[in-house]
Amino acid sequence: MPLEIKPSRPKIAITMGDPRGIGPEVVAKAFAQSSLYEVCTPLILGDANVLSTAVQSMGLGLRVVEVGEGAQGFPPGALPVLPLSNLPPGMGPGDIPPEVSSRASFTYVERAGRMALEGRIEALVTAPVSKEAIHGVGIPFRGHTEYLAEISGTKEFVMMLAGERLKVTLVTTHIPLAAVAKLLREEKILSVIEMTDRGLRDYFNLSRPRIAVAALNPHAGEGGLFGEEEVIISRAVQLAHVRGFSVSGPWPADSLFHRVQQGEFDAVVCMYHDQGLIPLKLLHFHTAVNVTLGLPFIRTSVDHGVAYDIAGQGIANASSMVEAIRLAARMAEVRKETQISKSNVQKEKKSL
Amino acid sequence: MPLEIKPSRPKIAITMGDPRGIGPEVVAKAFAQSSLYEVCTPLILGDANVLSTAVQSMGLGLRVVEVGEGAQGFPPGALPVLPLSNLPPGMGPGDIPPEVSSRASFTYVERAGRMALEGRIEALVTAPVSKEAIHGVGIPFRGHTEYLAEISGTKEFVMMLAGERLKVTLVTTHIPLAAVAKLLREEKILSVIEMTDRGLRDYFNLSRPRIAVAALNPHAGEGGLFGEEEVIISRAVQLAHVRGFSVSGPWPADSLFHRVQQGEFDAVVCMYHDQGLIPLKLLHFHTAVNVTLGLPFIRTSVDHGVAYDIAGQGIANASSMVEAIRLAARMAEVRKETQISKSNVQKEKKSL
Repeated sequence: MPLEIKPSRPKIAITMGDPRGIGPEVVAKAFAQSSLYEVCTPLILGDANVLSTAVQSMGLGLRVVEVGEGAQGFPPGALPVLPLSNLPPGMGPGDIPPEVSSRASFTYVERAGRMALEGRIEALVTAPVSKEAIHGVGIPFRGHTEYLAEISGTKEFVMMLAGERLKVTLVTTHIPLAAVAKLLREEKILSVIEMTDRGLRDYFNLSRPRIAVAALNPHAGEGGLFGEEEVIISRAVQLAHVRGFSVSGPWPADSLFHRVQQGEFDAVVCMYHDQGLIPLKLLHFHTAVNVTLGLPFIRTSVDHGVAYDIAGQGIANASSMVEAIRLAARMAEVRKETQISKSNVQKEKKSL
Repeated sequence: MPLEIKPSRPKIAITMGDPRGIGPEVVAKAFAQSSLYEVCTPLILGDANVLSTAVQSMGLGLRVVEVGEGAQGFPPGALPVLPLSNLPPGMGPGDIPPEVSSRASFTYVERAGRMALEGRIEALVTAPVSKEAIHGVGIPFRGHTEYLAEISGTKEFVMMLAGERLKVTLVTTHIPLAAVAKLLREEKILSVIEMTDRGLRDYFNLSRPRIAVAALNPHAGEGGLFGEEEVIISRAVQLAHVRGFSVSGPWPADSLFHRVQQGEFDAVVCMYHDQGLIPLKLLHFHTAVNVTLGLPFIRTSVDHGVAYDIAGQGIANASSMVEAIRLAARMAEVRKETQISKSNVQKEKKSL
């Protein structure tokens, strides 16, 4: 079947991730699925030699093509790479010097961030890097999300984990469980509700997203018997309600995710990492995508790490990368439609 | 199809629960399924008038029969009740005086506990009561589990929530999330691991249960970056391992339940209520059963409360009651087999 020519396919930059990790493998494996070329115009930011080695060792039959930033319209089978490092050919992940690998992995992110900021791509998908390793070579890097927020002057952002049947956003993320309760603030919860609503409108085509907010304590605190934090959450929900959001809670977390499955809500604002990630990974183990909301551009990423221990063996699962690219493409399409319809509304208003 | 005569069907006492709650409804609805009579010999501890009202208002076509403690072998269609209260006939749940209802609901539990202790039943299934309401009439009742532990001199017991695809036990239960971390003790975790192992052997026919222990913090604390409690959990796991249990952990909780679904573990020891209940209710919303491990007798219960707000409307879902009875019956059968095989082993040892 000939590839449908769709000039509007969004241009998506995909960083290759740490050359010593599973990033190159999952990127190459993802594009072995020719259907990905039907939803986007990809541009891999990485290393042509590393990708060639990955392609060959897995027998994927892809052709790595070095291209410039403006490259467009490659057919399935061609893997267009903007070469930003030049590691020696034929080297397995374990043979690449860590320092070289870490510096290179930062270079891809740096360029991708600049391209996104300048509007030269329509979405950014990131493969995993090691924060510690990049930090180790003297680059003050606190993670993809923090870096992208910094260069774009973004003060507030939120991590959404999205699967087909469940989307969660997190009020707190990588902190000890014991620290969660004392970090809950009305303003922070309100801000996450707002960003969740905005994200679902702008990128998921929901005109009035139904947002559930999870309680912190068992049985939502049972009227204060098992904790008082529901008072804070409740105030945030009420305030968001007054501002016009379709939001409710705090709901007992144990039964809430069943209700989402029954179609009652579009997303759940969770108070802590595992509250959202336990149900998400149970429903979408290989296909959940990490979406950063609040940035001025679309950014998705895989929900796994560099996995140095299995890199180069060809056994890494590429589903999360495939989904991250597909979702970024869908989000870019929805945003385009939303912007067109918004600008039509404005034109109509002007002509009145 | 004629009912198979199975003289060994375990005798199970089912308390009717608070007459003002949904207990009477779910008990009656459960026995409208004639298949339940094939797995057990039931005896309802409750009120014949209240049950008759429930049966009639839902048009279930069951015949409520008042019987003595030793009653045996009723056919489907007959609901054998040991009458322990005598509320006025024809009264809906909302019309029963709360004080009378609360006292009566305690009477059923009291008698059921005594029968279980004296070995006159093979398992006990409880319908929901209201702790607060019973407390309110001057009876120092802290809940079914605590009461049954007290009368049986049980020091250590643990709540297991069991579904077909997931079984979890809880190290802490109804406390604020902020209090969980400081309550984690090596000995307590070890004791829960041991009771989980014992329960799975004695009642679920697993000769060497594979137990996973969940971490408390996100990413299992990522080497101490997000919390230190994994050190305590880890020591408990190591100690349990030395004692011969097939146990591992602490595992990051977010990916653990997927692994259970893949068949890697038989049960998960969880550190807090929602850690276990979120995945359990997502997989088994209507069919999860609460099992108390550590008591000298088998006790299961529904995983819902009295639900005063919907009582008497005939809309309560009886699945959890059905599963609680089925599971109690299976557990009683397994225990019988285990005891027989143990006694055979002892006989063989003696004859050597």
